[in-house]
Amino acid sequence: MNTTNVHTTTITDGVDNGVDVPALLAAREALSAAPEAARFQWRARTEWVNGTHSRTTVEDFSGLGTDHDHRQTFRFDADHPEVFASHDNGATPVELLLAGLGACLTAGVAAVATNRGVQLRSVTAHLDGDMDIQGILGIDRDVRNGFSNIRVRYEIDADAPRADVEAIVAQSQKRSAVFDALTNPTNVTVEVV
Amino acid sequence: MNTTNVHTTTITDGVDNGVDVPALLAAREALSAAPEAARFQWRARTEWVNGTHSRTTVEDFSGLGTDHDHRQTFRFDADHPEVFASHDNGATPVELLLAGLGACLTAGVAAVATNRGVQLRSVTAHLDGDMDIQGILGIDRDVRNGFSNIRVRYEIDADAPRADVEAIVAQSQKRSAVFDALTNPTNVTVEVV
Repeated sequence: MNTTNVHTTTITDGVDNGVDVPALLAAREALSAAPEAARFQWRARTEWVNGTHSRTTVEDFSGLGTDHDHRQTFRFDADHPEVFASHDNGATPVELLLAGLGACLTAGVAAVATNRGVQLRSVTAHLDGDMDIQGILGIDRDVRNGFSNIRVRYEIDADAPRADVEAIVAQSQKRSAVFDALTNPTNVTVEVV
Repeated sequence: MNTTNVHTTTITDGVDNGVDVPALLAAREALSAAPEAARFQWRARTEWVNGTHSRTTVEDFSGLGTDHDHRQTFRFDADHPEVFASHDNGATPVELLLAGLGACLTAGVAAVATNRGVQLRSVTAHLDGDMDIQGILGIDRDVRNGFSNIRVRYEIDADAPRADVEAIVAQSQKRSAVFDALTNPTNVTVEVV
């Protein structure tokens, strides 16, 4: 066995990115036969603290035909920064969107890399989103409230050629829930109960 | 002075929801005269931990023509749940979107209520989002990856009639960056550097 073979074995069979791809492939097969079980509902509860500061709690969701508790309760403080005359007691709500996008694409990179036999060593996504706050301040009706543009730049150290790494990132984007949620419109209803 | 007048004084002048509305109105006026300063850029950095677990760091942004550090660094762990053969070391990326939506609308409720002289006592948003995971699993190409629908239900205790509370929520929605980001498409570019 020469060095090249050892290396090939490592990246095709011995790859360990911590993603259980066989379980995911089995889930895909099982859910293909039982599409009802694929209907998930994600939940969160946001409580106003004071001013623009709020705390969101995430603890359960439904899917596979039943309710599930997360292993622990997750809490997210959000606030506006001091330049908005607020107290900066948490990230801004729009930064939470960037965090969701980075997390979704990065989980996808790990899953796709594993499925393709590529060992990852490090993955970092740098995200930025442009926003003209003339929108949210109601100064200019032609300026939208949300981001005008979002960029994600990946630095990836992996046992694969650059072209393969780019293809992994592209496949992650193609299957990303958050990428879809930001690039396509979703119906959102807001009501007072 | 009768009781009604005392009450009126309280809700129009003595309201304190912790939002500095005069500062916001001054900012609006200042930025109307200097639209360049209204261009903000929000940033986040996501680092892969293991498997589908990542950690996102939020620490600075730019706006008003310069860079700003948050008062502290905010970190968000995200992961997939155990039913996806993962370790549930953080909220899912899509739950971060719900957190961002709840936080954005709730900050807006506090700001609009204050501007309208309405004292808030408690505000809770219950959010849920439906997602058919046949999309992200690649089972059915006609199923989108993201949410099919998001609902936000507000419970609000405030010194105002229900119709006024509903109008406050509607105005918050109208000026919400995250509501816009989820209900309208945004250009997102993803690249490997």
